[in-house]
Amino acid sequence: MKKVGKQTISFDAPPIILETASIVGPKESEGPMAKYFDQCLTDEFWGEKTWEKAESKIIKETVNTVISKSGIPSKDIDFCFAGDLLNQCISSSFGLRALNIPFFGVFGACSTFVESMCLGSVFIESGAAKYVLCATSSHFCSAEKQFRFPLELGNQRPPTSQWTVTGSGASILGHVGEGPYITHITPGKIVDMGIKDANNMGAAMAPAALDTIIQHFEDTGRKPSYYDAIISGDLGHIGKDILNEMMQSKGYNIKSLYNDCGVLMFDKNKQDTHSGGSGCACIGTIFSGYFFKELKEKRIRRLLLVATGALMNSTSTQQGESIPGIAHAISIEI
Amino acid sequence: MKKVGKQTISFDAPPIILETASIVGPKESEGPMAKYFDQCLTDEFWGEKTWEKAESKIIKETVNTVISKSGIPSKDIDFCFAGDLLNQCISSSFGLRALNIPFFGVFGACSTFVESMCLGSVFIESGAAKYVLCATSSHFCSAEKQFRFPLELGNQRPPTSQWTVTGSGASILGHVGEGPYITHITPGKIVDMGIKDANNMGAAMAPAALDTIIQHFEDTGRKPSYYDAIISGDLGHIGKDILNEMMQSKGYNIKSLYNDCGVLMFDKNKQDTHSGGSGCACIGTIFSGYFFKELKEKRIRRLLLVATGALMNSTSTQQGESIPGIAHAISIEI
Repeated sequence: MKKVGKQTISFDAPPIILETASIVGPKESEGPMAKYFDQCLTDEFWGEKTWEKAESKIIKETVNTVISKSGIPSKDIDFCFAGDLLNQCISSSFGLRALNIPFFGVFGACSTFVESMCLGSVFIESGAAKYVLCATSSHFCSAEKQFRFPLELGNQRPPTSQWTVTGSGASILGHVGEGPYITHITPGKIVDMGIKDANNMGAAMAPAALDTIIQHFEDTGRKPSYYDAIISGDLGHIGKDILNEMMQSKGYNIKSLYNDCGVLMFDKNKQDTHSGGSGCACIGTIFSGYFFKELKEKRIRRLLLVATGALMNSTSTQQGESIPGIAHAISIEI
Repeated sequence: MKKVGKQTISFDAPPIILETASIVGPKESEGPMAKYFDQCLTDEFWGEKTWEKAESKIIKETVNTVISKSGIPSKDIDFCFAGDLLNQCISSSFGLRALNIPFFGVFGACSTFVESMCLGSVFIESGAAKYVLCATSSHFCSAEKQFRFPLELGNQRPPTSQWTVTGSGASILGHVGEGPYITHITPGKIVDMGIKDANNMGAAMAPAALDTIIQHFEDTGRKPSYYDAIISGDLGHIGKDILNEMMQSKGYNIKSLYNDCGVLMFDKNKQDTHSGGSGCACIGTIFSGYFFKELKEKRIRRLLLVATGALMNSTSTQQGESIPGIAHAISIEI
């Protein structure tokens, strides 16, 4: 591999995305993407007593599913990269504690899925690993409780707010086999434009997406038209519009190629999720469920996948801090 | 690089630890290690209004110090790997948001420092990066508030409890230059032996340290006597004794070589920290302050550095969960 430009790594023997899996919650199961997921749950608890335990079960079963679908024995998977939104990433730690695979905990907020694939792909191409597992999760109820208000309070949600996706996405990367390739990664910098509204994550994260996408184009010499699709993680309707405008102001028109997983996840008119989906599982499940199949079936041949994260917590918001954003991009080709 | 045995990566062109830096709080400044740190603070706030903001300032200034000491322009540092104990790792995100270096957020609880060096060293040896920055922090007051009780409550601490180190440690790894080498990394698996006492972290983490250290010996064919010192992160007095006993029961006598940063940080008789120090900054500051100098001056030539982490939060404890542990090891030689 080699570094190209300021922030991008180009792979000589690109790591292969061998398999993916996704499990989603009940609201996602009523959305337009439902048919692409491996499993759609009918309630938020899945037989567990708490939302946190349910989230752990979701990531655990998603990981079991991707291992089973891949046909790769779990003893042959060298490392696992995983993280989530819960404090101290307990969904991943508890969900994956029985996995018996060396574990790297990752925190990139909602950028975690692509962050883990960035790290995993460097491990694969360098020869440090033959197979790695990348996984993430989020849960509407555990996230609302932790970041905003008790659900029982029935708080009104402003129009800029997004709906944390309940679910988990997981992928297995390998050095040989069939599947789309990760040809480049462009890990992002922390970008803080001073947005302080914890109910407007799209606006807080859009500048980070802008920074990473433009850097990717500059580093690789590619233009937007190189890609069949540019897909961001969870900017939602408002963040998507902001990113389109900001890209335009920098001289890049990506409108016809660009969409956001937060926009794709729910039906805006029927599902009352305001600005759309969010959470680690938003891009995690939509990539694993939908885009991976589009790539495998060659309906999309070149995808720029850009996961965005808001690096804050409720204490930082209460202390009047702004919301730093980050975005990590990977180029996936067939 | 190549994988050796089940969990270890061996480097052909070992990454170099070029420089380290450490800043500690007032209690650490009164302990036996004080003279080795770059800066000793006289109060817990350092001019900030909250403990969280103080912790962010500590990691920020530690990173500025290590960059300045190394003489490497920050624009030449390819990637930063950092994380901490605060929910959603906000100490790192806020402290390092102005750094303008592509950022990988890492969460391994108190194993974060060595986890970041594991990831960084793979990036260096693979050619993905020429220089990387690894950093972590913790703060007694922000950790007590978040994980246990408000400090104002003046709660009694049981004898098994440990004292979270206030401070930050940072290192810069590079592909060329002078300094000790990272020859092997042995990333750990999650190990959960069912300990549920959040005031006895040493007991919860010791089995993970055992698992990783023995795996390191099996993978590399080395014996304890290969090393001049085996140093764990923050098992404290109780965890240290447990690990010594468990190693003995597995046929390894490491007593004469082995110590723990939680034991080294405070004076057991004078400082009233019960089972000793803990927190991401425990191994972060003691490695950066003390052991790095011992290696540079060749008083120690072969060091096995084993950072331990407890992957829990206050919600998991309240929900009756046990405490999964993890330990990552790196072999550092001169």
